[in-house]
Amino acid sequence: MSERETGTAFMPKYDAAGLVSAVVQHAESGEVLMVAFMDAEALVATRKTGLAHFHSRSRGRLWMKGESSGHVLRVQQVLVDCDQDALVLKALPEGPTCHTGARSCFYRALDGDGLAPLGDD
Amino acid sequence: MSERETGTAFMPKYDAAGLVSAVVQHAESGEVLMVAFMDAEALVATRKTGLAHFHSRSRGRLWMKGESSGHVLRVQQVLVDCDQDALVLKALPEGPTCHTGARSCFYRALDGDGLAPLGDD
Repeated sequence: MSERETGTAFMPKYDAAGLVSAVVQHAESGEVLMVAFMDAEALVATRKTGLAHFHSRSRGRLWMKGESSGHVLRVQQVLVDCDQDALVLKALPEGPTCHTGARSCFYRALDGDGLAPLGDD
Repeated sequence: MSERETGTAFMPKYDAAGLVSAVVQHAESGEVLMVAFMDAEALVATRKTGLAHFHSRSRGRLWMKGESSGHVLRVQQVLVDCDQDALVLKALPEGPTCHTGARSCFYRALDGDGLAPLGDD
């Protein structure tokens, strides 16, 4: 196993586009709220402000979750995976995380060949 | 909002490389175990077998989690996000998920400028 896997140095392994995967998990309930990508700039902004920032592949720019809606994500802890190409942001959301108004972006499940809405519990 | 966001049709939105993000979450504890990518082939194999398959970007091929270790992931449910470019696989793992032997690939957290091991609870 490599130093990247066993060590205590933070060495994000960016892909060819300069990105790592970022999973946002509710810090208390454990629910997965959204999945996005971060680049070095988003990581710096997140660590500096404590609010989750990402890199939008479609818009080609830095964005702060909640920059227009106000529904920010307050990051409590950042977990790093073995090869350092994925992060879990444990966060407390202000308001719904999904732009559709759903609590989580994952509001549907595969059901046969289609999708079924998940009950809100 | 689009049909992709509100509808019941499963229409994965693959990126330029033909991939969607895939987060594996323990079906009972909610712990995030690993993050990887799936292409259409991995999705078909996962749905057919009930065991998590992914696309390896480094090896450029389909792989079944546990194909060498035996530590497979039995998929209980697949959640789909709003724009259908990310999936959550709720799974029951057989053995440790990480190739390092850790229960989850996320066994370290950012701590100042470095990483600190998480306690195993």
